[in-house]
Amino acid sequence: MVNRKGEQTKALILEKASKIFNSQGYRASSISDIMHETGLQKGGIYNHFENKEEIMLSAFSFSIDTMSHFFSEAMAGKQGYMERLHSIISVFEGIAERELFPGGCPIMNAAIEADDADPLLQEKVREAMDGLLGMVCNLVQEGIKKGEVKQGVDPEFVATVLISTLEGALALSKLYKSQEYMKRAVHHLRSFLAQNCA
Amino acid sequence: MVNRKGEQTKALILEKASKIFNSQGYRASSISDIMHETGLQKGGIYNHFENKEEIMLSAFSFSIDTMSHFFSEAMAGKQGYMERLHSIISVFEGIAERELFPGGCPIMNAAIEADDADPLLQEKVREAMDGLLGMVCNLVQEGIKKGEVKQGVDPEFVATVLISTLEGALALSKLYKSQEYMKRAVHHLRSFLAQNCA
Repeated sequence: MVNRKGEQTKALILEKASKIFNSQGYRASSISDIMHETGLQKGGIYNHFENKEEIMLSAFSFSIDTMSHFFSEAMAGKQGYMERLHSIISVFEGIAERELFPGGCPIMNAAIEADDADPLLQEKVREAMDGLLGMVCNLVQEGIKKGEVKQGVDPEFVATVLISTLEGALALSKLYKSQEYMKRAVHHLRSFLAQNCA
Repeated sequence: MVNRKGEQTKALILEKASKIFNSQGYRASSISDIMHETGLQKGGIYNHFENKEEIMLSAFSFSIDTMSHFFSEAMAGKQGYMERLHSIISVFEGIAERELFPGGCPIMNAAIEADDADPLLQEKVREAMDGLLGMVCNLVQEGIKKGEVKQGVDPEFVATVLISTLEGALALSKLYKSQEYMKRAVHHLRSFLAQNCA
């Protein structure tokens, strides 16, 4: 019973902390912010985490798990590789439209913030971005093997174009609180995939 | 003499502060960081600025002035509108290659960080991004008038595609400390302009 309650508290801390860090930044957010949002005392937080660094890294992982879940959901039931590539675009469109992450894309936000002063966070951000770029690369490679994607298409080129454009457009849509930027990027990338890959 | 020295000190503060804010974030950076980098005492800084907010806003403007200078330099001597559109891509390529802004693009970084809690900074970031998007829009509009850009091209569409992709790729190149992401984005956007605008 105690363990289960402990797990629930830990999950609450991660849920709230991930939103705070993603909105306000990792360095600029304090334990007081997390105390305020969770209603917990400092001791109630440090029961579950050794220090702020551990909360930061765990909260980042929590955001990435949430994102991965959106991609898995979007891929479910999609058979073709082109269809799956298009569903990555749709996930970003959904993130912008429904403001699924207050503060914008967790990977991009942490990428902008993390630098050599935060080697552990930077390493985790690179792993998360590797996952995102790698997902596109794999779909292109498998699509080529199955004859659904044109021979000779460079998977890393497609991954860079898709992810750069989607991340940039998500940031613009957030800045202006307008879906127009994401809509234009989506239109552009669907044409790009149709012209270059299919 | 005193005034001139005062101006030099103010310029030194803005130069150092803009780098600190762009690398570490606005909220996460302190006056102590600026004291450390400039070698000035707290009073020597607050002689020139009323509070941290004023330093933040002035340092952001300093970064934007630097960026504008890069664009002016790149446009100088370019006659055609297509050539000028391509030179915007080249400026971003140069920023990535020569790491002209430690921490990445000052507009994007501040866009990611600024939110409703920072209305003044957010307003300045929107103005700066308006300037960047507007520069692309104007070149497309003028290019259409002069017959150098295809009739029917949507200036805002071109601006969103260019700036989203360049900003996203700059962030990827910074994260991985690799020019490859920017190079792929540049290759993609040069084809995009050739196919859609010329």
